[in-house]
Amino acid sequence: MTGVGIDAIELWTGKLRLDLPEEFAPAKGEDPEKYTKGLGMFSSSFPDAYEDIVTMGANAALRLMERKDIAPEDVGRIDVATESSWDKSKPISTYIAGALEQVFDGDFTHANKGERKFACIAGTQALDDAYNWIAAGRNRGRGALVVTTDTALYERGDAGEATQGAGAVAMYVSEDPDVLEFESSQGIGSLDETDFLKPNQQFPSVDGKRSVQVYLSRMREALEDFERNAGDTHPDEYRFIPFHTPFPSMVKKAARLGFRHMVRNTDLEDELAPAIGQQPREAEYTDWEDYEEDIQAYMDDLTETDRYREWYDRVVDPTVDISHEVGNWYTSSVHIARLSALKHALEEDVDLAGEKFLVGSYGSGAQAEIHEETIQPGWKEEISQNNVDEQLDARQDIDFAEYEQVHDHHNLKKANDLEPFTTPDGEFVFDGWGPMGERQYKYVE
Amino acid sequence: MTGVGIDAIELWTGKLRLDLPEEFAPAKGEDPEKYTKGLGMFSSSFPDAYEDIVTMGANAALRLMERKDIAPEDVGRIDVATESSWDKSKPISTYIAGALEQVFDGDFTHANKGERKFACIAGTQALDDAYNWIAAGRNRGRGALVVTTDTALYERGDAGEATQGAGAVAMYVSEDPDVLEFESSQGIGSLDETDFLKPNQQFPSVDGKRSVQVYLSRMREALEDFERNAGDTHPDEYRFIPFHTPFPSMVKKAARLGFRHMVRNTDLEDELAPAIGQQPREAEYTDWEDYEEDIQAYMDDLTETDRYREWYDRVVDPTVDISHEVGNWYTSSVHIARLSALKHALEEDVDLAGEKFLVGSYGSGAQAEIHEETIQPGWKEEISQNNVDEQLDARQDIDFAEYEQVHDHHNLKKANDLEPFTTPDGEFVFDGWGPMGERQYKYVE
Repeated sequence: MTGVGIDAIELWTGKLRLDLPEEFAPAKGEDPEKYTKGLGMFSSSFPDAYEDIVTMGANAALRLMERKDIAPEDVGRIDVATESSWDKSKPISTYIAGALEQVFDGDFTHANKGERKFACIAGTQALDDAYNWIAAGRNRGRGALVVTTDTALYERGDAGEATQGAGAVAMYVSEDPDVLEFESSQGIGSLDETDFLKPNQQFPSVDGKRSVQVYLSRMREALEDFERNAGDTHPDEYRFIPFHTPFPSMVKKAARLGFRHMVRNTDLEDELAPAIGQQPREAEYTDWEDYEEDIQAYMDDLTETDRYREWYDRVVDPTVDISHEVGNWYTSSVHIARLSALKHALEEDVDLAGEKFLVGSYGSGAQAEIHEETIQPGWKEEISQNNVDEQLDARQDIDFAEYEQVHDHHNLKKANDLEPFTTPDGEFVFDGWGPMGERQYKYVE
Repeated sequence: MTGVGIDAIELWTGKLRLDLPEEFAPAKGEDPEKYTKGLGMFSSSFPDAYEDIVTMGANAALRLMERKDIAPEDVGRIDVATESSWDKSKPISTYIAGALEQVFDGDFTHANKGERKFACIAGTQALDDAYNWIAAGRNRGRGALVVTTDTALYERGDAGEATQGAGAVAMYVSEDPDVLEFESSQGIGSLDETDFLKPNQQFPSVDGKRSVQVYLSRMREALEDFERNAGDTHPDEYRFIPFHTPFPSMVKKAARLGFRHMVRNTDLEDELAPAIGQQPREAEYTDWEDYEEDIQAYMDDLTETDRYREWYDRVVDPTVDISHEVGNWYTSSVHIARLSALKHALEEDVDLAGEKFLVGSYGSGAQAEIHEETIQPGWKEEISQNNVDEQLDARQDIDFAEYEQVHDHHNLKKANDLEPFTTPDGEFVFDGWGPMGERQYKYVE
């Protein structure tokens, strides 16, 4: 079998931008550093009045298909991952396919369409399905379009309000891909958890503290499972490690846990031992709390070492560049982390061909998944054609009062009228509700 | 690669039963034959007060795992297909895994859990994912638990009210399966349709007439696509052809279309020609409506032939035996059609080993999928251990007034208190709402 992986990536941001230190913090009467330093967030993206998960997903997919000259006939599978759907039966992929068919000559009648839901990890699961479909030899020469799309809104006043965001990522999975190949091994850590859910409600119920803990526990289990599958890991094996990024500071916690785990029983643990000692071993403790205290102390020391800081700055920090500016995009989050790393490498002229990424996905509820990717020679040409900065810079700034109007507009219980802040141009827009309660879309030249 | 397919099947019916000719028709002031002859429906299954999609799915899975001596460690993947979820973020598979972990010693931490949504076809898509996962060599010796579970309720007074049902199917997908192997070829017919959807609502908006037409059109496209992939089909190739069964009479329409299509350009078309002529060919018509009229007339004649009737009675009619008694189970529907055929073969002492099934799945919105399955020598031993008749016979009959109470209880907007009609025994039950709005479950000895 030839390699299978991501042939192209495009994102589409919600077109509005709320500045957190300048607008959100003052309105909340908070220190701006609570957001910039505490969460690592500078601004959030929001959907304009005519945007939703279908328009954002279809616009990302359209950009991708046009740029790569992919026709509907080439696409054998369209899978959408979202936790923002409004329909319990009809999948968002059918709406997106219907929108795209307004623009392309051909149609997607032959394409298997689907929708996956598992909080923020469903996009990675959809990529996994696409990989398996091709690796099983069932793709008939076609590729898979995987779209992650969410409007990550919280109740106003909820602690999650500062981490909101809205956007979509489209990825094309094919044989002999230009950007990266997936490795076959993966690791899973998954347990029934009540940390974040949306029972009969649009906005989530969140136990924030527990969610952080659950993220780390499942990620540790996924890494252990990955090593059982693929063998021991070492932090220097991976040029970048993109994690699911609900907010950038979460990634700092994940990175130090991952580094500590990967370092254990390596040359690196010995190299660091004169300064911070060897890692505590759980087997040597009779009391789990004593162990937990010692391992946390070790991690505090570890993250203060130059070796860790250099590693973090080189391998992890560039993965949150986009997240700083857009907020949480739920299912898209780990995929913009990967794209952020690729974009950084392009800008810094890093030669990535043949380098490996370790990707740590997570969804509340809860599950983590870890797998490896190998960057392909075509990555640079591909990533150089993205327009991430142009899209982010083109967002319309809104003030706090406008933000409240936007939030109300997208709140299903309020859905107030809202005059758009921006003018659509060469893109899909929401075009009103149809007679059966369906949302309708049109392409605006 | 060894064969991959279904190793075991179990169903779990909602524990209440509403008789359509005896209870529903009189209450509606309708002729009972509207239901028995018009729809082919005799009774519907409903969930008791303590039942929902999690309890039914977990109970089917528990029966399957206990019967097959499958431990959590053996299960690498739990995928749930449903269009009745109440949570926009947390997948039903996590609730089901959490319930099962109350009973088993081990846990499913290593298992990839997911949820698929595409009206009634998502269960087939989940089987497909499981097959691809194993065929791609990524299962590490484990199998996949696929659970389809729905409460198919409509607004009272809606035309769909007579086709309601509630139940779940659990299927275990593995290498070297006991019941059947999936063939690799498949056909898809898929188009963005507004025939049945649930936009921000529990109960569906349905355009019934259109939905019938869309079902047939997508099924025809799927069959054409299947033949492009696997070569021409012939009606005598398949011992049984289970279709998605929203109500049994729909299957009659699908069967005659499928038979007509498969017969074309075969010995069978020539054999029937003296009595009913050759099939009209679209290429010979300038007006599509003329063609449509002639092909419908041909199909009317075709379905009157002894050859067709013998085929229908042998190949299709046994697939709706269970559906007659339980109604529409949405994602489970095509899987109880398959089980119905297997059960019929067991009862009639038909030797199925090596025989082929052609399976026609459908989901509104809309997509059809067609694939082949080859029955394995172990099928008889497996199916003889199902307890379908015992479960159906054990259902508690309810009258129309009780039905209205049950419907209200499961209506999220009413959710009235309801004293259970039955007593749970060795099964999972709903145990109230938790502090974050989560539904909780317990096992009752």
